[in-house]
Amino acid sequence: MTPEEFRKEGAKVVEWLAAYYEEIGKFPVLSKVKPGEILAKLPAKAPETGESFDQVMEDVNEIILPGITHWQSPSFFAYFPANASFPSILGDLLSSGLGVQGMLWATSPSATELETCVMEWLAEMMSLPETFRYRSSGGGVIQDTASSSALAAVVAAREKASAYTTNKQGVTRRMTAYVSTQTHSSLEKAIKIAGIGRDNLRLVEVDPNFAMDPGLLSEAIRKDKEEGHLPFFVCATIGTTSSNAMDPIRKIGEICKEEGLWLHVDGAMSGSALICPEFRHFGDGLELADSFCFNPHKWLLTNFDCDCFWVADRRHLVNTFSIVPEYLRNQASDSGEVFDYRDWHVQLGRRFRSLKLWFVIRHYGVDGLQQFIRNHVNLAGQFAGMVRASEHFELITEPPLNLVCFRLKGTDEENMTLMNKINSGGEIYFTHTKLAGKVVLRMSIAQSHTSEQEVNTAWKLIRDAAEKMNRK
Amino acid sequence: MTPEEFRKEGAKVVEWLAAYYEEIGKFPVLSKVKPGEILAKLPAKAPETGESFDQVMEDVNEIILPGITHWQSPSFFAYFPANASFPSILGDLLSSGLGVQGMLWATSPSATELETCVMEWLAEMMSLPETFRYRSSGGGVIQDTASSSALAAVVAAREKASAYTTNKQGVTRRMTAYVSTQTHSSLEKAIKIAGIGRDNLRLVEVDPNFAMDPGLLSEAIRKDKEEGHLPFFVCATIGTTSSNAMDPIRKIGEICKEEGLWLHVDGAMSGSALICPEFRHFGDGLELADSFCFNPHKWLLTNFDCDCFWVADRRHLVNTFSIVPEYLRNQASDSGEVFDYRDWHVQLGRRFRSLKLWFVIRHYGVDGLQQFIRNHVNLAGQFAGMVRASEHFELITEPPLNLVCFRLKGTDEENMTLMNKINSGGEIYFTHTKLAGKVVLRMSIAQSHTSEQEVNTAWKLIRDAAEKMNRK
Repeated sequence: MTPEEFRKEGAKVVEWLAAYYEEIGKFPVLSKVKPGEILAKLPAKAPETGESFDQVMEDVNEIILPGITHWQSPSFFAYFPANASFPSILGDLLSSGLGVQGMLWATSPSATELETCVMEWLAEMMSLPETFRYRSSGGGVIQDTASSSALAAVVAAREKASAYTTNKQGVTRRMTAYVSTQTHSSLEKAIKIAGIGRDNLRLVEVDPNFAMDPGLLSEAIRKDKEEGHLPFFVCATIGTTSSNAMDPIRKIGEICKEEGLWLHVDGAMSGSALICPEFRHFGDGLELADSFCFNPHKWLLTNFDCDCFWVADRRHLVNTFSIVPEYLRNQASDSGEVFDYRDWHVQLGRRFRSLKLWFVIRHYGVDGLQQFIRNHVNLAGQFAGMVRASEHFELITEPPLNLVCFRLKGTDEENMTLMNKINSGGEIYFTHTKLAGKVVLRMSIAQSHTSEQEVNTAWKLIRDAAEKMNRK
Repeated sequence: MTPEEFRKEGAKVVEWLAAYYEEIGKFPVLSKVKPGEILAKLPAKAPETGESFDQVMEDVNEIILPGITHWQSPSFFAYFPANASFPSILGDLLSSGLGVQGMLWATSPSATELETCVMEWLAEMMSLPETFRYRSSGGGVIQDTASSSALAAVVAAREKASAYTTNKQGVTRRMTAYVSTQTHSSLEKAIKIAGIGRDNLRLVEVDPNFAMDPGLLSEAIRKDKEEGHLPFFVCATIGTTSSNAMDPIRKIGEICKEEGLWLHVDGAMSGSALICPEFRHFGDGLELADSFCFNPHKWLLTNFDCDCFWVADRRHLVNTFSIVPEYLRNQASDSGEVFDYRDWHVQLGRRFRSLKLWFVIRHYGVDGLQQFIRNHVNLAGQFAGMVRASEHFELITEPPLNLVCFRLKGTDEENMTLMNKINSGGEIYFTHTKLAGKVVLRMSIAQSHTSEQEVNTAWKLIRDAAEKMNRK
């Protein structure tokens, strides 16, 4: 494909996407295809000779589109948000097109330095503590997902606690880590990967709001110390995935400081809210944390993948991950004057991800992004109000931000039936969780184009379906 | 930004990229900026209110572009290739725009099933063993990088060898792994992350072609067994990064089968060559491997990130990585009829990466991709011929594919001086390594638009610079 042909075909893809967003409301939000249906429509073998671009785009329409669950639909209320925006898509396009590797400063200085810049901008926007700023001992880096950040934090913590012996000798003693029963599954995954073992991960019980109980955390640490283990890591969450619970960062942080444990704060889903002064109290105590992450690819208009990860002392990361084979040595790295971000995570190769984040922040400005967050929080408040006022439903938690947890007054089975029935209709898509042993329905209100209209429609669908079930 | 504005701004970015590729030869391949220069030009704080798209694009030209090292330049011969193509960029654009999560089958069935499809296409194109096909016990998945594949392989192997006890109890005994002295640094990184420890990684010595010596591998395994350790993992490489050495997969595989070790084959840089029948012998013995990966984002016209990873028995991956919190449970997953690819790697969230690979394979066809590989191998052969014929240089290895390792007949310092002088000129960019203790220069010939002309120009620059140094 020549640049001239790229102009032509590129225009088609841009047009396709513009039209997709104009018509997104027409598709069932949750794809209706059956397992194997898409695969059966695709040829078993690759074509021997090249095919036309138009043929490929036709298959996108005919084969791929029916198997899409529309995460960008304004009526997508499932799981967690993954909101995108046009400026982000265009920043990402530029990144794909430039095709540079950001593994070392030297392999594209702009990729490293723009990343440092946007991470500083965000730190400032969220009033993150000085420890996380690159001019102090810390700094920020963009990872793909919060799972990778969790793994980086666990491994760096493991190294620090063992005086850098586990990298060398492997895990040779029982080291214990602490999360709440509500902490994201990626933490358990990281603990397993890092060779610590699931048996050494303590699930601390939560209070009635599903937030970690700091007293029980203290007890668990003391018990492990008494038994001769080496407690090394705690993860606290700003906004759990299941119910948006807010762990008490400050109290947990004080315990971690006292006991000498690494505190990682996972704000993957809800950390974006810290850009608004009125929600910043959820991050109170972050200056006691050793690492913190949140995902602009969830709730800050930046398309996947983009997780922002900060550490209070970058030496722990670099000491843990740095390996310099001769073929990557270069004058800039040897000088010690630059960051080589490949030493801040698992992967070597790295995409120029800061571009899309830079496009987003500049297009919307701090004001625009704050409005975006506030709008969703308001909509969630309205939805919660409708649940509260209804006779058939109950609110399970007071939503701190944009996730509403509620349930039909009835059995778990009735709740699941209600949800599956509505989802199969295709007008909206929402999902469930379990809290205190009971099925709970979740409305995650945070897609880029969600407005009062979609939220009201969703409530009407849910309420009407419940009334129909009641009449039977 | 409305869809209408996206049409307008999208056209600008497409035009920018088309023009970039038309003019890419005008930029210095290796960026000439100094550490801190880009960051100093960027504002210290994010804008309060939104800025115009044109302003952002102007800054791309004025601030970002000078700090780009042009990986897509036809005169980029450094490190390893990271070639992109217009069809890939457009497939990636579609992925960014759709913004779907491929973590579960249910979260977008097309994302899972198109991935299964293109992984099957590639398996067929490369004549991979039946064990890697999804209709048998195995299957393929797209990871971000070969580093993540290496980590997935190490952890799955660790679990299998310990009868799934390390996930539960952590690493509780000495487990040993084996690579060659030339194996990629990502394997050492994975061994450290997985809690095995660098001291338990054996670096097996290589033969004169820098390929692993299987006799020494056998000895190392026997010795560890005698000392009561648990050998569990070997990595063999198709085309080492440093010198493109080809480890003898079959011999190593036979040892692994006999000793019960997991064999991972890393074809990150050179595995793409297996799509050509005449290069398929480098993969001889792959049916003995437990896992294999290669990077279409290196040498198959697919922009970063895209690493293809296959396993012979997917249960080992799923048993290792699967964690199902209630909020991710769904009918399709519970039915067991679908793949949920998030259980095949570290990350939970996943991009719709198969789209770009599908666009590439369909646009070029198998024939076109084979021609692409053959062209680079021919060019490398021509370059090696010129080195061989020259009085000032010597060829260090016979290039098996597209990487030429050579050196100026002189000191290490003279070689480095020569290389740095040429790179600072900006016309080409190539890098060095060390082989058998000596500095060696590397020409990695594999960018999308590299032709005989750029290779000849590169050789002329190198030869002329050497003659000038000689005259001094």
